[in-house]
Amino acid sequence: MKKLLLTGFEPFLGLPINPTEKIVKELQNKNIGQYQIQSVLLPVDFEKGPELLISCLNDIKPDAVISLGLAAGRKKITPERIAINCRDGEPDNNGVVMVDSPIYEDEPAGYFSTLPIREIVQILNENGYPANISNSAGTYLCNNIMYTLLNELNKNNLHIPAGFIHIPASHELVIEGKKNMPSWSQRDLQQAIELIIENI
Amino acid sequence: MKKLLLTGFEPFLGLPINPTEKIVKELQNKNIGQYQIQSVLLPVDFEKGPELLISCLNDIKPDAVISLGLAAGRKKITPERIAINCRDGEPDNNGVVMVDSPIYEDEPAGYFSTLPIREIVQILNENGYPANISNSAGTYLCNNIMYTLLNELNKNNLHIPAGFIHIPASHELVIEGKKNMPSWSQRDLQQAIELIIENI
Amino acid sequence: MKKLLLTGFEPFLGLPINPTEKIVKELQNKNIGQYQIQSVLLPVDFEKGPELLISCLNDIKPDAVISLGLAAGRKKITPERIAINCRDGEPDNNGVVMVDSPIYEDEPAGYFSTLPIREIVQILNENGYPANISNSAGTYLCNNIMYTLLNELNKNNLHIPAGFIHIPASHELVIEGKKNMPSWSQRDLQQAIELIIENI
Amino acid sequence: MKKLLLTGFEPFLGLPINPTEKIVKELQNKNIGQYQIQSVLLPVDFEKGPELLISCLNDIKPDAVISLGLAAGRKKITPERIAINCRDGEPDNNGVVMVDSPIYEDEPAGYFSTLPIREIVQILNENGYPANISNSAGTYLCNNIMYTLLNELNKNNLHIPAGFIHIPASHELVIEGKKNMPSWSQRDLQQAIELIIENI
Repeated sequence: MKKLLLTGFEPFLGLPINPTEKIVKELQNKNIGQYQIQSVLLPVDFEKGPELLISCLNDIKPDAVISLGLAAGRKKITPERIAINCRDGEPDNNGVVMVDSPIYEDEPAGYFSTLPIREIVQILNENGYPANISNSAGTYLCNNIMYTLLNELNKNNLHIPAGFIHIPASHELVIEGKKNMPSWSQRDLQQAIELIIENI
Repeated sequence: MKKLLLTGFEPFLGLPINPTEKIVKELQNKNIGQYQIQSVLLPVDFEKGPELLISCLNDIKPDAVISLGLAAGRKKITPERIAINCRDGEPDNNGVVMVDSPIYEDEPAGYFSTLPIREIVQILNENGYPANISNSAGTYLCNNIMYTLLNELNKNNLHIPAGFIHIPASHELVIEGKKNMPSWSQRDLQQAIELIIENI
Repeated sequence: MKKLLLTGFEPFLGLPINPTEKIVKELQNKNIGQYQIQSVLLPVDFEKGPELLISCLNDIKPDAVISLGLAAGRKKITPERIAINCRDGEPDNNGVVMVDSPIYEDEPAGYFSTLPIREIVQILNENGYPANISNSAGTYLCNNIMYTLLNELNKNNLHIPAGFIHIPASHELVIEGKKNMPSWSQRDLQQAIELIIENI
Repeated sequence: MKKLLLTGFEPFLGLPINPTEKIVKELQNKNIGQYQIQSVLLPVDFEKGPELLISCLNDIKPDAVISLGLAAGRKKITPERIAINCRDGEPDNNGVVMVDSPIYEDEPAGYFSTLPIREIVQILNENGYPANISNSAGTYLCNNIMYTLLNELNKNNLHIPAGFIHIPASHELVIEGKKNMPSWSQRDLQQAIELIIENI
């Protein structure tokens, strides 16, 4: 059976939970569509996050990779179109702050996702989960992981479906974190991700 | 068994569906908590909407009233605090436009909801449905129905729990209407309303 | 010459500045339209704010009253339609928290503004300042001052133009407070208020 | 004197005006800082817009290029970090719709702005104009122009400051277009752009 590496993140920036953590734990070792899921929880850390991702790519040798991240404030499931060679923004969970810093010197400005993002959006919408393509994964850990992923596959000449998908906050996160932002139930979030995996 | 009058609205302002219509149809005649549900679908019409509500109050003689409306753009379930004696805004489904017009001349500027809105918010949040109190039901049909409801009960000296609850868009509405606004699954929306009814 | 009482607020909720404070200080004693401006800066304090307002009404005996407040997050100048008899929300600057508390027991649920709010919106828009009517002044100090103002005039049978106008954040507030919200230049904000005073 | 090519766009997507059009017309032939301004108004047309830009680059041989675009809904002045090799979204003014289409086959996924975007943001904020860096210029004409600009300079080995800056709506656009979005006065918008030019 094919292997799909599914990554999520630990909580960050003071939020009490991260709905992607719950999804990757729930789907660990499950068989969905043509894939067995290999889940990995990544630290929100500019050094250790990408390192762990690269070691998982080497160990697992997946046939497809989907990295998940929380996009607090977004209303829909949003497959990312592109990762850019830049780190910037808030401190990571280790307190490290990057400002306009390349992820890797002398590498390209950007890499496009190799997931079928247009089809993913279409399938989600057809099945009742609002979705659209996002043109920016930001410049924080999410973008860093997506860039590292695509750069690594490119360097190794591996042509597999791989990319990043941002999800909205969960109801639970909004309530526990006392936030005012759009949210979905954790069940809706997880079912949408399962639907994506079934269709790639 | 006690009777709860539950009202929803037909679609309006060009939106393809109204999630409150689905909820009231689904819950028609159900027994929830201490109530049997009596559902009514109201027209988005400054004349016929309030008229139908008043005739239902007289016919059904409910022990509690919850009127539901869609608040496109809101992220949470929002029990309304107050209805105000004003009609304004977009044309109704009959093309009638009101501008700064009292609903009833010589009646009070506002009526507070007699639903336990603070407890409703607390119960929803405790059960995983983000909620907060709203301080404005607007000046369109939703506010009109809430004002008519509370004015009518006040005139008839009826002290029953009665008020208005706005809900976010459903995923379905966002997808079919090609909208970019926060949404919940219809299932989440309906379950939240059932939870409210169980607890009043 | 007629006297217009113009009130603003001190900073609150940790914001570094309040653009209404600057406006009332700039316009103090100015003659605008048919009015001489009498400015008062109110404390964000559920007890002392309304007290100071009432004493100013008694001392100044104004011919018109405009109370200004900051509505962080709003995009336009928004004359408020109604004040409601409720205090709720964040702690005031004295640390006092109100929850669903009437401002005055046994007083009406709401009072409508007696400012010509529709004309104000029209004049602002005609002169290049985006404006619309707001249907909620919230339940914090702004609403409390507006309610106290209208209740006091009503009790004393004084029929003068009086109400509350919310303004967006200033560019300065957004920059100094490191906020991400809509803002206008302080100059635009002040000129819009002057234009309102010229036309009431 | 050095020459700065300053481009703006005509109105698009049914909006009645484009504040960037007014700015480029106002600044045409002005001397600002070390530059004489050469203004060009670009059509919102996937074919003719980039063509006109390239011919202007060849004819004018500018020492710096700033392309301006309207980002309806944004609250701040936002220098763009990167242009991506993709066209997508709404129809252009000629009715042409692009879907996930490369701007140029076999060209890089992205180019970073060569404007000093961090310094621009800092100078704007220091002078009272809210600003931050944007990580996406979208996939419509704005991004297309920015990509074409940077791709052309790269091909010709021209190392000059060049990039794209998005601006919020103007008050005028919000009022005439009956929109509900953040806006600045046209004066604030133009002064912010002049300040940028003085400092690059």
